[in-house]
Amino acid sequence: MKAYLDNSATTAQFEQVTDRMLEAVREFGNPSSMHSMGVIGEKMVRKARKQAADAAGADADEIIFTSGGTESDNAAIFGGVESLRRQGDHIITTQVEHPAVLECFRRLEQKGMRVTYLNVDRDCLVDPEAVAAAIDEKTILVSVMQVNNETGAIQPLNEIGRIIREKSEAYGHRILFHTDAVQGFGKIRQDLQLNGIDMMSASGHKIHGPKGTGLLYIRKGLHIPAFIVGGGQERGQRSGTENVPGIVGLGEAASIASEKMSENLEHVRKLRDKLLNGIISGIENVRVNSLTDEKGLPYILNVSFPGTRGEVLLHMLEQAGIYVSTGSACSSKKKGSHVLSAMGLKPDEIEGAVRFSLSADNTEEEIEYTLENVRRVVADNRRILKIAGKDRRR
Amino acid sequence: MKAYLDNSATTAQFEQVTDRMLEAVREFGNPSSMHSMGVIGEKMVRKARKQAADAAGADADEIIFTSGGTESDNAAIFGGVESLRRQGDHIITTQVEHPAVLECFRRLEQKGMRVTYLNVDRDCLVDPEAVAAAIDEKTILVSVMQVNNETGAIQPLNEIGRIIREKSEAYGHRILFHTDAVQGFGKIRQDLQLNGIDMMSASGHKIHGPKGTGLLYIRKGLHIPAFIVGGGQERGQRSGTENVPGIVGLGEAASIASEKMSENLEHVRKLRDKLLNGIISGIENVRVNSLTDEKGLPYILNVSFPGTRGEVLLHMLEQAGIYVSTGSACSSKKKGSHVLSAMGLKPDEIEGAVRFSLSADNTEEEIEYTLENVRRVVADNRRILKIAGKDRRR
Repeated sequence: MKAYLDNSATTAQFEQVTDRMLEAVREFGNPSSMHSMGVIGEKMVRKARKQAADAAGADADEIIFTSGGTESDNAAIFGGVESLRRQGDHIITTQVEHPAVLECFRRLEQKGMRVTYLNVDRDCLVDPEAVAAAIDEKTILVSVMQVNNETGAIQPLNEIGRIIREKSEAYGHRILFHTDAVQGFGKIRQDLQLNGIDMMSASGHKIHGPKGTGLLYIRKGLHIPAFIVGGGQERGQRSGTENVPGIVGLGEAASIASEKMSENLEHVRKLRDKLLNGIISGIENVRVNSLTDEKGLPYILNVSFPGTRGEVLLHMLEQAGIYVSTGSACSSKKKGSHVLSAMGLKPDEIEGAVRFSLSADNTEEEIEYTLENVRRVVADNRRILKIAGKDRRR
Repeated sequence: MKAYLDNSATTAQFEQVTDRMLEAVREFGNPSSMHSMGVIGEKMVRKARKQAADAAGADADEIIFTSGGTESDNAAIFGGVESLRRQGDHIITTQVEHPAVLECFRRLEQKGMRVTYLNVDRDCLVDPEAVAAAIDEKTILVSVMQVNNETGAIQPLNEIGRIIREKSEAYGHRILFHTDAVQGFGKIRQDLQLNGIDMMSASGHKIHGPKGTGLLYIRKGLHIPAFIVGGGQERGQRSGTENVPGIVGLGEAASIASEKMSENLEHVRKLRDKLLNGIISGIENVRVNSLTDEKGLPYILNVSFPGTRGEVLLHMLEQAGIYVSTGSACSSKKKGSHVLSAMGLKPDEIEGAVRFSLSADNTEEEIEYTLENVRRVVADNRRILKIAGKDRRR
């Protein structure tokens, strides 16, 4: 038996997505060129843009295709800041963003921007009042992720959006609101208009679509400088020959995700609850780092097993064909989790943290198999570390 | 019968490339994550990097994978300029670059950099002495393409590289040398060390590899700021989850191209000569805009048929299943060709220009079929335009 529970890192591409992409590969043609092979490509891209827009609750002309969530974040943040640079020098984000956002802010900070990195509480949530307190007359951009990639915490974008609009009106100038929705896109509603979001980033490979694909929503009427310049593709917002098969795959994946959103969410919630209850009832001394009410995305369950090393648990589970993660894949080569640290977890809670991230393809049997093994490896690892600790104390 | 002669816009992906990519899709896994599925992805990426490096005549750790030639150009130019910005404010390129390069220079110009756009001669060639004359004590970067995408002209990179080194020594500071090799990579040798090239851009979909893939060669020891920041993939030079299937496809395509380079070049040269001779001998009043000696890449034949409209020829040929281009695909939505203009062609030579771009998959039969049809459509179009001209004169 196997259980892939690292779906927040990347997902298995749907066969249906692969099939559509293969069709596009065969019907190759550069959609910017004039001849009929190009026309076919253009038609495919148009359909995919509609699919992606529908999944985002946006209009097709508000969607720009990119090479992934990271490029989308870079394009939104650097472009957004550049467009309002003359108006102010202050930008706001959170301490628990994905590195694709955090590194943009760090670079802007090095270039002289003032940056506020907002705290989160023990549940990984940003306080909207903290956003209100941080905004000053020179604030030009706020970036808050929709769903945290390590804990699944769903940030209060609606309240934050309302505060940004109020402050914007009070100061009489524009404050852009960007959200990295890489973990939420295709899993929960986006509510872009309702939340007053100006720009939203999403990725293909987190929703069983192709790697190397992403999208950036740019609200109608908002103009930001292009991040990648050249031949003027994507209405001048993103140059480079269109990755037609990739775009087709992303559109298809977005469409499937969107169609099955409620059904998938219900299924995954059941699995998450089973996993959660099995861990709580079967293992002593655990800390659940994910919210399990409506403020947490059921696709992610982060649990600390104090007295263990997450990295060792990961390898022991891998021996049993179970794939989990200790943090986000992107930061897995670095030490510790900046997210769990920001939440104020103790060192042994951070060290013993494991992220289980689900997909609609996971089954109850896989969860049962995982539970058996988690109980075993946690017990084993705790025993070994205890002995090792005693050894050291001698 | 059909003949696809627009291979400089994009190429049909090799079946072998698609097969390798499908293997990678199945063996999905995020190469930055720690578990064994990631290890497989990492191994695939390592192999592809070696293949790409071999094709470029570089070391594996000098290759960064990107989302395409355009991103590579943006990364090299913006990153290169930023790394030396304190040293000077002058940059040099040519009037015949691809928009992916030209637009970067225009943006830098808007930001206060001094830019020299070098002229070319009637054959689309840059004079190395013009580079020497343009370099001043504040020059920090020179970008000259290897092969022009509209004419196939091969720029004298070796002489330009020598001049850059001499000037660099004379002024006692570094001048970076970048080349957009999108049209030459996999078709002719790169000679990066010999030519003193610091950075080189290439693309996957021009060599029967996947769209949405490219590479940037960065010479060992050269450090430029990353263009896309985030999780720190590609040794920090290009963040974003690695597009493993795309990278695998690019590596495979580069490997195939590299292996068959001489064989392909010989085959394509024969086809080009046949096409060229057929046009010259069968059609009056033509101007061959491509060099057909060792200074021209045989993959591209650009010919002007004065008294016709290239766009109309294109559509008439398309009716016969023959796909050509009037300029590069990227600029096809805009008016005229900036390359042919820079070469000093007359308006009717620019308007009647057609680019035939070959691949090793083209056959003699396709060329014969193309020749028949080109003769017919040129004659038809000239007759119609002549009548229309007479009509107007009444």
